[in-house]
Amino acid sequence: MELENFQLKPIGIIHSEHKVLDQIPAQPVFAKDCIGRVMIYRAYLDGLKDIEEFSHIYLLPFFHKVESVNLTVKPYLQNAEKGLFATRYPNRPNPIGLSIVELIEREDNILHVKGIDILDGTPLLDIKPYSARFDKIENTKNGWQDQVDESKANELGLRNYKGKTE
Amino acid sequence: MELENFQLKPIGIIHSEHKVLDQIPAQPVFAKDCIGRVMIYRAYLDGLKDIEEFSHIYLLPFFHKVESVNLTVKPYLQNAEKGLFATRYPNRPNPIGLSIVELIEREDNILHVKGIDILDGTPLLDIKPYSARFDKIENTKNGWQDQVDESKANELGLRNYKGKTE
Repeated sequence: MELENFQLKPIGIIHSEHKVLDQIPAQPVFAKDCIGRVMIYRAYLDGLKDIEEFSHIYLLPFFHKVESVNLTVKPYLQNAEKGLFATRYPNRPNPIGLSIVELIEREDNILHVKGIDILDGTPLLDIKPYSARFDKIENTKNGWQDQVDESKANELGLRNYKGKTE
Repeated sequence: MELENFQLKPIGIIHSEHKVLDQIPAQPVFAKDCIGRVMIYRAYLDGLKDIEEFSHIYLLPFFHKVESVNLTVKPYLQNAEKGLFATRYPNRPNPIGLSIVELIEREDNILHVKGIDILDGTPLLDIKPYSARFDKIENTKNGWQDQVDESKANELGLRNYKGKTE
């Protein structure tokens, strides 16, 4: 069972101002002004119908630059070793990301989004609508993240982000 | 580029009371009392460290029973044709799910979770911690979902769920 493999294929490509891996903000919340374009392959165009009615969407990128995976890592927001699955660190056994971005506009097969924290040229596996009914959870315990104060998070979450350079 | 393929492999298996596809609640919010066990392969055990400090986690299952994909679908909560990517319908080009479940307890390589809306025996691709800082978005516009009232959603979201039969 462990050896079973699944084939996935990109439905599009993500474009962003982020050209250097270690200068990408850690999460959309630290990349609020970063604009991106999600280009969906025309074969999937019909699947985008009605998506423009949502203010926020999930992007599920495939982190194609990931080479090595460690099961414990120091996340960007805290200098302490954590279990990989207790972090959002990109180097994972299945390197699938999860970014909640603001959907500004759809232009045919292109989604203009805000809050992009993904490397330019990253393949996209899926888009899902963010729905408060399913996704906005009240009163969560957020593990080690609750120990990171907001200003420290904002500082570390930017990583080496230098602002828009284009 | 469109033909590029990615290989993924399960990190574990999801066990639940849901044995019949069309009797699975549509989302964790409609499956609040459904208990599940997520069995992580022992090779990935170290990656679970600290996860028990989080009250909620994302499960990213691979919907291995998906056979056909349509780019427009009638979602479970509304009897109207929508673009697939504007829904959480499971039959997707890359059939990756996204369920936010409550983490009750970790017992070595087993996660006991609540609110499971996933078929028994489904392979798991990834786990991510739910973090209010990243994931709890205020003031969203939720597209067609905003037109579905809460009691109607609760009725339709159960689908053909009959309650625990084990």
